[in-house]
Amino acid sequence: MSRRTSAAPLTRTGRRPGSPDTAAAILEAARTSFGERGFNATTIRAVAAEAGVDPALVHHYFATKADLYAAAIEIPLSPSTVIPQVFGGEVSGLGRRVTEFFFAVWEEPESRRPLLAMLGGAFGGNDQGVAGFREFLVSGLLDRAVAAIGGGRRTEERVELAMAHLLGIAVLRYVVVLEPLASLEVPRLVDLVAPRVQSYFDGE
Amino acid sequence: MSRRTSAAPLTRTGRRPGSPDTAAAILEAARTSFGERGFNATTIRAVAAEAGVDPALVHHYFATKADLYAAAIEIPLSPSTVIPQVFGGEVSGLGRRVTEFFFAVWEEPESRRPLLAMLGGAFGGNDQGVAGFREFLVSGLLDRAVAAIGGGRRTEERVELAMAHLLGIAVLRYVVVLEPLASLEVPRLVDLVAPRVQSYFDGE
Repeated sequence: MSRRTSAAPLTRTGRRPGSPDTAAAILEAARTSFGERGFNATTIRAVAAEAGVDPALVHHYFATKADLYAAAIEIPLSPSTVIPQVFGGEVSGLGRRVTEFFFAVWEEPESRRPLLAMLGGAFGGNDQGVAGFREFLVSGLLDRAVAAIGGGRRTEERVELAMAHLLGIAVLRYVVVLEPLASLEVPRLVDLVAPRVQSYFDGE
Repeated sequence: MSRRTSAAPLTRTGRRPGSPDTAAAILEAARTSFGERGFNATTIRAVAAEAGVDPALVHHYFATKADLYAAAIEIPLSPSTVIPQVFGGEVSGLGRRVTEFFFAVWEEPESRRPLLAMLGGAFGGNDQGVAGFREFLVSGLLDRAVAAIGGGRRTEERVELAMAHLLGIAVLRYVVVLEPLASLEVPRLVDLVAPRVQSYFDGE
């Protein structure tokens, strides 16, 4: 389950504290916490305690809480790895790569569930839930996306509008279950949406 | 407050049961109920009881629950009136009219609050909240929008994607308060978003 169990050894002897089982235990604890308490209320410390490991070990396997979250919800690759792949290629294909990635994550029930929990937390009327969701969007996606595309405030505005478009579709498709949108096949959905997302990356 | 107090008299004597005060009392009861319980859990019967009038009178002033909702949250004009205006003109200007209308409603704190309550209800994990939100979207907007544009399932798909785009912006701007999107001035926001909404109305 861990994306980082093959990382270079850290200690002099070439052995790391922990093992693939340790990473799996951390991920299981993280999945439970993110699913039940949401992103913000979940702490590295609490996940470590639940998994019976030192918090430093959690940081070792998963650099940031956003990375841990991404791994826990089984996003195919963690943001640090995915963002360069998605945003690093030709800008002309960026809209499609982002849109395909977004729906690949949402179509997977295992990753959809904690995302829904996070959305629920943001809408639950508590400021912590909102702050957690904002933190995840900004540190997990927006900052790196804007850096990859290049540009300042105007790029940020357009990247956020593209994110808003994808988010709104997720809300109507997976939460509200509005037909016919909810039954649209993913390839057709991507064909419809990718050009509009791309138009935000192309400019005003 | 009522949009219909000047409606033609219904009775032989030329006097209607109720008065502008009655309509105002109904709206006040509706505002309380929609705000506290959301769209679905609010019934015409309960609003009537709260306002101390007969349910038939509520239907007389506000044809449907969606109309009552629109009046209660002070959407400038109720959906039945607005939709023909927004969707009835040239299709080439439809994206801009819809986008301007959408943000005019959301920028108004009085109408934003119950919309947020409805969104919260939809995300609160209870099926009633979701069903109420879906009903509001479909009967209040989608059905009439699709009818006005003309077309079948493919038009519905594209109208829903346009709605999803606007909804997603509302979420990031008013709930998550993601900067710089949250501080974007409305005219610039409309300039950025309207062409993308329009592109869904134009075709695939």
